[in-house]
Amino acid sequence: MTDERWARAALSRLAEPCDTTVAALLERFGAVETVDRIRSHAPGLERFGARVREANVDQDLANARRIGARVVIPGDDAWPTRLDDLPIPPWCLWARGPLPLESGLRRSVAVVGARMCTEYGARLAAELAAGLVTRGWAVVSGGAFGIDAAAHRGALAVDGVTVAVLASGIDRMYPAAHGPLLERILERGACLSETAPGSAPMKSRFLHRNRLIAALTAGTVVVEADLRSGSLNTARHAVGLARPVAAVPGPVTSMSSAGCHQRIRSGEAVLVTNAEEVIELVGEMGVDAYEEPSGPVFAADGLPSAEARVLEALPVRGAMELDRVSVLTTLAPLAVRAALARLEDLGLAVVEEGRWRKARAPRV
Amino acid sequence: MTDERWARAALSRLAEPCDTTVAALLERFGAVETVDRIRSHAPGLERFGARVREANVDQDLANARRIGARVVIPGDDAWPTRLDDLPIPPWCLWARGPLPLESGLRRSVAVVGARMCTEYGARLAAELAAGLVTRGWAVVSGGAFGIDAAAHRGALAVDGVTVAVLASGIDRMYPAAHGPLLERILERGACLSETAPGSAPMKSRFLHRNRLIAALTAGTVVVEADLRSGSLNTARHAVGLARPVAAVPGPVTSMSSAGCHQRIRSGEAVLVTNAEEVIELVGEMGVDAYEEPSGPVFAADGLPSAEARVLEALPVRGAMELDRVSVLTTLAPLAVRAALARLEDLGLAVVEEGRWRKARAPRV
Repeated sequence: MTDERWARAALSRLAEPCDTTVAALLERFGAVETVDRIRSHAPGLERFGARVREANVDQDLANARRIGARVVIPGDDAWPTRLDDLPIPPWCLWARGPLPLESGLRRSVAVVGARMCTEYGARLAAELAAGLVTRGWAVVSGGAFGIDAAAHRGALAVDGVTVAVLASGIDRMYPAAHGPLLERILERGACLSETAPGSAPMKSRFLHRNRLIAALTAGTVVVEADLRSGSLNTARHAVGLARPVAAVPGPVTSMSSAGCHQRIRSGEAVLVTNAEEVIELVGEMGVDAYEEPSGPVFAADGLPSAEARVLEALPVRGAMELDRVSVLTTLAPLAVRAALARLEDLGLAVVEEGRWRKARAPRV
Repeated sequence: MTDERWARAALSRLAEPCDTTVAALLERFGAVETVDRIRSHAPGLERFGARVREANVDQDLANARRIGARVVIPGDDAWPTRLDDLPIPPWCLWARGPLPLESGLRRSVAVVGARMCTEYGARLAAELAAGLVTRGWAVVSGGAFGIDAAAHRGALAVDGVTVAVLASGIDRMYPAAHGPLLERILERGACLSETAPGSAPMKSRFLHRNRLIAALTAGTVVVEADLRSGSLNTARHAVGLARPVAAVPGPVTSMSSAGCHQRIRSGEAVLVTNAEEVIELVGEMGVDAYEEPSGPVFAADGLPSAEARVLEALPVRGAMELDRVSVLTTLAPLAVRAALARLEDLGLAVVEEGRWRKARAPRV
């Protein structure tokens, strides 16, 4: 192991994510000297003293090795270069699973939402995730209860690639009940963490973790979120990174959709209803364009005005003289005659004994 | 009755709404001469011949009088001047009901949507309408089944003013099943039509009627609309008139909300979830501003960073030495001590025998 890799692993033990003092040192002196300074209780770094005394980086690395986790650092082929867009990238990534991170996450979407979700939200998250991976996009989420788990499961259900970014250490399955889910994710995807093995999940780590989910992906979709959902924090990070954000609407009577509606109203998120619309939003221009659905198209659609007016004047039952059509439409009899002929050609009007009516089943 | 009023009543019998030939004549020669030219089969106006032979304007006026309807024309105090924004305003309005139209419609909102609506949509339309009239806004709709009827009924349920704009003649209750509903609307509001008494509802008249709903109001709300709903036509008219358009979202699994979602996605409509948001959109700037709801506010919200980090490190059960808090937070012991003191003041942290824990019920 290089000194650089060891030092960055040590930083993930010694310093919380986004510690601005450490970020400044790292930028100026590099990881090896930054760790040296922290370990030698340099002036201004005394607050790390207690952690320095407790840290055992070699043990962390051994613990990681035992579960097949590796340390990924900037400069590695596997390093997801999108992370460099962050004001303070993670010191390193602890990673498990076979997915080549940089290439495997290039086409990826974050699907996030409330822990306390509804059946509607869980179904939507699963369908969205399945639709995304089916179209070649990896689904990234946080491994939490609710929408996160539904998104991971939806991706797995169609043998898709999905990635869980954890707030705890890579060796701590959190929540514990999701151990089997995370194991399934590891078969083809990856679990990632920026904190050292053994680290406990803490609120600030969840918030820092959220920025990784936003940064690793081409865009973020919020499926269900009440007004205080942590997933809105992920969406806010994505906005800050100029990544597109989508939100799935729901019943306005459901507080579980209130956060989605709020972000759509504020313009921070684009309303999406399916995977195609998500891909249109996050995909490369042109490559992933998607045509809006329209209603069913009828033969009568797009008729010239005169013919449309004649057609609507015709009865379905009974039949009507040409002069009567002229009264109803205020079209001259000659214009009515021409329109009727054209409608007959289209199979939309029928003449019987000189009287006209609509064809019975004019829809095609 | 003035010649002008009689002539405009006659036009509503002789010519369909938005007939461009008639509009041009009206602009150039006024209503009286336009009617004279149509009745004398002037060159280019032969197509009106059949209607001229059938028309009986005095009979139309007598039929209207019998049901208490009047003819409102431009220049009347009652004429809704917003109609003048239309490329082709109605020739006249046939009006029933006590509402003074111009002043009564100044603060009005169109609430429209699909005939085939869901229970969710009907409930939302009724609640939205009730919320609007409670706040002093009249609710305008088309008197149709589904969302229209729900909106009218919601307004009536709280004794609000509501207005139905009909595609049929003012003396034809259409749909017939809505006779009792329209009678209730007439107690405080109004029914309006731009076509002569006795006129049948026809598809083109519904489309023309939709432009009146959009034009009469300060803005239009679409509650539920499939991709071909006529209410989207009303919304399109409102966009053309530079009136704000709102749409209520729903489950993405419901085709009844697909038209709403499409218009929100396209930017033609603003997502709204309640009457306040509608009023914020259509109301006068400043006068009707509305504050976005936020989630519940907790005492721990907005704590300075150090205190927030200390608070989350504290256990709820058991208690923790100050030094341990320092390890978990990477804050210097002195900073931890200051933060703990402040948290104790706020009632968020408790110290017992020199060890700290979270207060049991820190929420306020």
